Amino acid sequence: ARRGYPEAIYCAGKTPEQVRRIAAAVAERPDVRTLFTRATAEHAAAVLESLPDAHHDPDAGLLAWPPEPPPPTGGLVLVLTAGTSDLPVAREALLTARYLGRQSELITDVGVAGLHRVLAKVERMRQARAIVVAAGMDGALPSVVAGLVSAPVIGLPTSVGYGAAFGGIAPLLTMLNACAPGVSVVNIDNGYGAGHLAAQIAAPVPEQP
Amino acid sequence: ARRGYPEAIYCAGKTPEQVRRIAAAVAERPDVRTLFTRATAEHAAAVLESLPDAHHDPDAGLLAWPPEPPPPTGGLVLVLTAGTSDLPVAREALLTARYLGRQSELITDVGVAGLHRVLAKVERMRQARAIVVAAGMDGALPSVVAGLVSAPVIGLPTSVGYGAAFGGIAPLLTMLNACAPGVSVVNIDNGYGAGHLAAQIAAPVPEQP
Amino acid sequence: ARRGYPEAIYCAGKTPEQVRRIAAAVAERPDVRTLFTRATAEHAAAVLESLPDAHHDPDAGLLAWPPEPPPPTGGLVLVLTAGTSDLPVAREALLTARYLGRQSELITDVGVAGLHRVLAKVERMRQARAIVVAAGMDGALPSVVAGLVSAPVIGLPTSVGYGAAFGGIAPLLTMLNACAPGVSVVNIDNGYGAGHLAAQIAAPVPEQP
Amino acid sequence: ARRGYPEAIYCAGKTPEQVRRIAAAVAERPDVRTLFTRATAEHAAAVLESLPDAHHDPDAGLLAWPPEPPPPTGGLVLVLTAGTSDLPVAREALLTARYLGRQSELITDVGVAGLHRVLAKVERMRQARAIVVAAGMDGALPSVVAGLVSAPVIGLPTSVGYGAAFGGIAPLLTMLNACAPGVSVVNIDNGYGAGHLAAQIAAPVPEQP
Amino acid sequence: ARRGYPEAIYCAGKTPEQVRRIAAAVAERPDVRTLFTRATAEHAAAVLESLPDAHHDPDAGLLAWPPEPPPPTGGLVLVLTAGTSDLPVAREALLTARYLGRQSELITDVGVAGLHRVLAKVERMRQARAIVVAAGMDGALPSVVAGLVSAPVIGLPTSVGYGAAFGGIAPLLTMLNACAPGVSVVNIDNGYGAGHLAAQIAAPVPEQP
Amino acid sequence: ARRGYPEAIYCAGKTPEQVRRIAAAVAERPDVRTLFTRATAEHAAAVLESLPDAHHDPDAGLLAWPPEPPPPTGGLVLVLTAGTSDLPVAREALLTARYLGRQSELITDVGVAGLHRVLAKVERMRQARAIVVAAGMDGALPSVVAGLVSAPVIGLPTSVGYGAAFGGIAPLLTMLNACAPGVSVVNIDNGYGAGHLAAQIAAPVPEQP
Amino acid sequence: ARRGYPEAIYCAGKTPEQVRRIAAAVAERPDVRTLFTRATAEHAAAVLESLPDAHHDPDAGLLAWPPEPPPPTGGLVLVLTAGTSDLPVAREALLTARYLGRQSELITDVGVAGLHRVLAKVERMRQARAIVVAAGMDGALPSVVAGLVSAPVIGLPTSVGYGAAFGGIAPLLTMLNACAPGVSVVNIDNGYGAGHLAAQIAAPVPEQP
Amino acid sequence: ARRGYPEAIYCAGKTPEQVRRIAAAVAERPDVRTLFTRATAEHAAAVLESLPDAHHDPDAGLLAWPPEPPPPTGGLVLVLTAGTSDLPVAREALLTARYLGRQSELITDVGVAGLHRVLAKVERMRQARAIVVAAGMDGALPSVVAGLVSAPVIGLPTSVGYGAAFGGIAPLLTMLNACAPGVSVVNIDNGYGAGHLAAQIAAPVPEQP
Ligand SMILES: Nc1ncnc2c1ncn2[C@@H]1O[C@H](COP(=O)(O)O)[C@@H](O)[C@H]1O
Ligand SMILES: Nc1ncnc2c1ncn2[C@@H]1O[C@H](COP(=O)(O)O)[C@@H](O)[C@H]1O
Ligand SMILES: Nc1ncnc2c1ncn2[C@@H]1O[C@H](COP(=O)(O)O)[C@@H](O)[C@H]1O
Ligand SMILES: Nc1ncnc2c1ncn2[C@@H]1O[C@H](COP(=O)(O)O)[C@@H](O)[C@H]1O
Ligand SMILES: [Mg+2]
Ligand SMILES: [Mg+2]
Ligand SMILES: [Mg+2]
Ligand SMILES: [Mg+2]
Ligand SMILES: [Mg+2]
Ligand SMILES: [Mg+2]
Ligand SMILES: [Mg+2]
Ligand SMILES: [Mg+2]
Repeated sequence: ARRGYPEAIYCAGKTPEQVRRIAAAVAERPDVRTLFTRATAEHAAAVLESLPDAHHDPDAGLLAWPPEPPPPTGGLVLVLTAGTSDLPVAREALLTARYLGRQSELITDVGVAGLHRVLAKVERMRQARAIVVAAGMDGALPSVVAGLVSAPVIGLPTSVGYGAAFGGIAPLLTMLNACAPGVSVVNIDNGYGAGHLAAQIAAPVPEQP
Repeated sequence: ARRGYPEAIYCAGKTPEQVRRIAAAVAERPDVRTLFTRATAEHAAAVLESLPDAHHDPDAGLLAWPPEPPPPTGGLVLVLTAGTSDLPVAREALLTARYLGRQSELITDVGVAGLHRVLAKVERMRQARAIVVAAGMDGALPSVVAGLVSAPVIGLPTSVGYGAAFGGIAPLLTMLNACAPGVSVVNIDNGYGAGHLAAQIAAPVPEQP
Repeated sequence: ARRGYPEAIYCAGKTPEQVRRIAAAVAERPDVRTLFTRATAEHAAAVLESLPDAHHDPDAGLLAWPPEPPPPTGGLVLVLTAGTSDLPVAREALLTARYLGRQSELITDVGVAGLHRVLAKVERMRQARAIVVAAGMDGALPSVVAGLVSAPVIGLPTSVGYGAAFGGIAPLLTMLNACAPGVSVVNIDNGYGAGHLAAQIAAPVPEQP
Repeated sequence: ARRGYPEAIYCAGKTPEQVRRIAAAVAERPDVRTLFTRATAEHAAAVLESLPDAHHDPDAGLLAWPPEPPPPTGGLVLVLTAGTSDLPVAREALLTARYLGRQSELITDVGVAGLHRVLAKVERMRQARAIVVAAGMDGALPSVVAGLVSAPVIGLPTSVGYGAAFGGIAPLLTMLNACAPGVSVVNIDNGYGAGHLAAQIAAPVPEQP
Repeated sequence: ARRGYPEAIYCAGKTPEQVRRIAAAVAERPDVRTLFTRATAEHAAAVLESLPDAHHDPDAGLLAWPPEPPPPTGGLVLVLTAGTSDLPVAREALLTARYLGRQSELITDVGVAGLHRVLAKVERMRQARAIVVAAGMDGALPSVVAGLVSAPVIGLPTSVGYGAAFGGIAPLLTMLNACAPGVSVVNIDNGYGAGHLAAQIAAPVPEQP
Repeated sequence: ARRGYPEAIYCAGKTPEQVRRIAAAVAERPDVRTLFTRATAEHAAAVLESLPDAHHDPDAGLLAWPPEPPPPTGGLVLVLTAGTSDLPVAREALLTARYLGRQSELITDVGVAGLHRVLAKVERMRQARAIVVAAGMDGALPSVVAGLVSAPVIGLPTSVGYGAAFGGIAPLLTMLNACAPGVSVVNIDNGYGAGHLAAQIAAPVPEQP
Repeated sequence: ARRGYPEAIYCAGKTPEQVRRIAAAVAERPDVRTLFTRATAEHAAAVLESLPDAHHDPDAGLLAWPPEPPPPTGGLVLVLTAGTSDLPVAREALLTARYLGRQSELITDVGVAGLHRVLAKVERMRQARAIVVAAGMDGALPSVVAGLVSAPVIGLPTSVGYGAAFGGIAPLLTMLNACAPGVSVVNIDNGYGAGHLAAQIAAPVPEQP
Repeated sequence: ARRGYPEAIYCAGKTPEQVRRIAAAVAERPDVRTLFTRATAEHAAAVLESLPDAHHDPDAGLLAWPPEPPPPTGGLVLVLTAGTSDLPVAREALLTARYLGRQSELITDVGVAGLHRVLAKVERMRQARAIVVAAGMDGALPSVVAGLVSAPVIGLPTSVGYGAAFGGIAPLLTMLNACAPGVSVVNIDNGYGAGHLAAQIAAPVPEQP
């Protein structure tokens, strides 16, 4: 648990067998909160062998152990998505922030082609201490959101789209060039990184001057 | 005058001397409406020698002769800009559409970071038959506009910005991936092409069934 | 039905099960014309369960419900292809325009390597109010077509080709640099977007001054 | 002053004459704190005509008016640089955070090729609520810093370097792929954006639950 | 004189002083035909000091010594250009072929946006043994030409254009993806290489079986 | 049979069923020599149903009908490969040239890392009228070959390699920048195009002056 | 055995059958040390048929015959990895150096996000004559290592990562821009090349002046 | 003097005034050997004010102080260039190696288009302990050299060339894909880095087992 946060096991590059061994070791140290990210069904089965009560979110490809998140401290983390295809990545961000100890909520399908939907959520958005905005294709949502709130916006480009979306390069560039200040960007599809950063930003402030 | 539209002389690759010779020839055929585009101050001086009454718009780098645009026919062409730096390219589009015979108007500085500004113009936008949207940096404006109107939107990416704007590649990709249907895109900074296309779209319909 | 046009369900990012649920909901609201695009055989089967009389075009990967297109209004939409491999994308454009209410026709295999074939179609091309030109590889056809007609040309780059075609980047760039004015471009393989835009351009003009 | 923060005038795309007019208008509304960014010597002279007591930092290309920053609130903002060539961009970040109301400090020349230099600063780094890390060339510093602290790290890639640094693309990619969580990235050379975001992250927390 | 062809001095990377020294040495060996390519006015002056009767074509940036080309042998080399801005590069190709001993001709301004112009030249094109086609922007001309003739077509992409022309990358890709067989491509703006290759292709056949 | 050369059917984008129908039509017109390129085993089986005596080269993915090549005319076409992985593409070039009527030979595995191998073949190389050089990875062979012979060299970059070979981009760029004149380039893996062009270059000269 | 080093058979582009034939030939010449690289399980089985006692490292995809490495000469070769996913490529480097006759060791999982791990190994690192550093994602480790030692560092970028890691381009660029001198780079995932070069650098010096 | 090697001052990003101050400080510590790299004429004048006897090589843009290189130890460092335009970068490498204490020699103009020239130098090349090969355009020379010698080859891509040379990207990729083992690569135009690495490779071996 680096710097008080959960340990994260990135399953994508590992065999189910390797993950099984790690999960067995995790079971030995119940004091360390652990997340397994980018877990396929096979990875998940391997984890659940040793940690049968782990929380498993198949959409996000994430398992958490122990299953209950810590009691929330600090500020609210909001995760917004432009479309429904952004959901897996958005849920990875949502759950990461939650298991790092933040109150976290998901608002879906508020893409800029239907402005009324995003405008309807402005009030809730203004209560957040950090907002993750997941979007593929044109990646225009973070620019719009950052113009509406004063909290930091974490742009989370997704590989949703085709052709000149170039596997997420288009929304990545859009977000790096956001015309409203207050936007920064993480790697394409990096829901874990976005949620982790949001939790750090919204962390309780130790000693405030 | 190809297909009934004005002749256009693209000055960028030409010496002032070459432009001077062309302008002298243009003076000989008063029946052909002619535009000089991408004209520097030197190019403009060379044109005005032979065509002293030509209309000259230094911001757009455009000269038109004869100076009066034709009486407008067809539908309204709107040109929108996200920021003030997009103005030269936007004016090139505006004037091209006007000298091709359309009523054309400019609305500036309605970038998505301040949504209220673009929302305040929706009514006028809904009266247009074609809308050119010039934007650099994140290039997010066409997606928002296309979600608000049913007329075709011509995305006009500009080279405004720095770093990962890559001289206009970022807004170009954003516009190609616009999440609202009804958007197409022209080359970076191609105000002439955008205005020409808008004029074609908004042209009077010859014989409507 | 945004702005009077059919609702479109983009199947590519969805499971057959998700599409099945959407089709069931669509069956409940017969007043809303609906298109399912990028549908695989599995997606199509899921749609046809709830909407057994939907029109299904397997080549285009498109289903339409109700099955009859609306009676055509506005101007003619032509869809041209350079080669036979461009057909699926071209048919997606064709059917989209048709179900948005336009008379639409397909002319295939008129690539620029055999100019006589495209020249033989000029007369019909001059009757169109909007022309979609689908081409992969060198993407040269829109430049040639735009030089022959005064209607707007929508360049539709396809991912047909190999090597330095770069999955459609080569024809995309060609079309963005078309040397004839009157060409704009949509995303690679975006037949739906091209057909939608063509239908908007060729829409009946409400009140013409 | 959008959302309580200073107004910023981005001079890069503007003529000295345009900036002069803006400065004159700024002088009329002494209640609005204003920053002029990316100001050349000519821009600065134009500003100082109307606002002779504005604070001017030529290295950062920044002018601030009124000249005194607001009394600092919230947490500490640190700005680190890998090399000396990153200084102008780093100072832009530093001053932006300061004029947005944060205590802000600069630590220079702690590139990863000399680890002892960065290790010597760990204690101060752990007192910051947000850390901006400016680096060009290999852009490796944010990864190292994020591994040493639990505050959010804002990667600020600079265009310092040559050849395969590609004007800042290399450090931009490095930072997007930072192997330590807690790093996000802004546009190349965007010191203003980095400083603004750091100030937002380190802002005083209104009502903490 | 490698392989019987003239020696070529590429001036672009050299100082006038370096070129002067080379020209002086060239004057010593009147048996070796020599070309100076990419010569600025300063380079040219340096050459003409030692070789006052050298042929100088300022548009092409080329000097040849001795000034008369060899009597032509082999087949006809044609050089076509799409626009007038392609002329300098086209002339470099033309003169290179001529000084390598071929009959060579230039046909200008036959871009595909005006098909009648290129169709008017088909007869002459069919008499050539090799055709160089210089084009920037969309680079579509070689595809059209190769469909009309059976001689080899050498695509010569030029850096003419702006925005998504990317300094010649767009026409380079177009030509590499030419949909008619019989097209190959040289480097952007490489008129010397294109002319040299054309001369090799159209060389007299030593002993034909 | 365009311009006297065989008809070519590019199978890659077609279903076996589509190819079967084409082969049946080909059987009806025995006067037209036909090549089927990029044919998988399934494509080949479909061709052989209607054209059981067609020549089939599985390595090259090519079928030819009628099976015997025409009696060779014109000059010799040589095809060289740098490594053994380049063989399929090289054989496609070899057979294309042969079925277009040229004497054609293959020399394999003469990469530049073992110069003695390529030097051992110089004599034969000097007898060719056109040389196709297939190479992946560093793509250095065409530069070396062009320095040794005076015949035109057709660079045929292959997608052999990994990492920074970028699917053939690296050798493509190398060949476009060949430091010896006399090299032109076709698309990555385009053995058909290279062989076709070589046959055109080495064609018998109709009437030589 | 080029220049006294083992022969290497690159299996990736070859069928198991082709590899089988090569292994049979290798069995005939026991004096030539041979490596089979990038061998799948099928390739390995084909090799072991003829060379049953070959050493097989499935992780590295490498087989060596004869199985014992030569007695080590020259200096120490160290191979470092940033993460566990870099292991296959690192082992390929390690074994290549070993079978070329160097003492070689592996140190894993010393990524820069946990500096203490790499600092703990400095002493051993200073005993090496050449250090291979394998890293994906941000590729920052070689910069840090080169700042700690005076031996040459060979950067070995791996394709580990996702999104903007671009299959190894990100760490490749990072390493090319390493801010400490003494770093050079090989192709992405090229463990064989890195190990070979390290063995050459650390080779015994024949006659030292 | 990091790790026993000279201190290097990279002038490119510094004003003459900054360099003057550094030179004055250098004059105070005569025990530290110092190189000034990438120095313009203005930079050089500033250095020579305080260090009038510094060695100045204007071609390489390098100054060294004290002016005499240390007595050479270790092995021979060779620097090869493909063309004459590569000379400035090559000399930077040559002098860096020399001032780091190696015997170093330059061999110029041995590009692969004239193989006899490089073959004539093989004997000397085989006496070197490290070879730097500077090449632009096709960057093919390192592959050829590495096939001829067993010493490590450092590929030094230069920005020489135009068009698809892309400022050195083409030779960089060529060298990364070199088909002979024993080649590694430094950044484009990084003569300092190449010379430094060569000196490290050819350093005297402290204690050889
Ligand atoms: N989904 C994810 N995306 C990016 N990085 C991750 C992800 N999950 C875990 N990580 C990082 O990967 C590290 C674990 O890598 P490993 O030791 O290979 O399991 C963690 O410390 C995280 O910093
Ligand atoms: N600003 C512009 N951007 C792009 N194309 C233009 C522009 N102005 C003119 N053109 C095109 O360039 C053609 C004239 O080119 P030229 O014959 O070189 O003057 C016109 O027919 C237009 O199609
Ligand atoms: N140095 C800078 N870099 C990026 N954006 C900036 C910078 N300075 C100001 N801005 C942004 O540009 C906007 C002002 O643009 P303008 O209205 O053109 O002066 C401000 O609201 C900021 O969001
Ligand atoms: N020509 C050069 N190219 C790349 N890096 C260099 C060059 N010259 C010096 N350096 C590096 O830059 C460092 C000095 O940078 P600085 O402190 O900004 O002068 C030295 O330690 C070298 O590692
Ligand atoms: Mg905001
Ligand atoms: Mg719309
Ligand atoms: Mg037209
Ligand atoms: Mg951290
Ligand atoms: Mg042809
Ligand atoms: Mg040659
Ligand atoms: Mg070192
Ligand atoms: Mg070697």
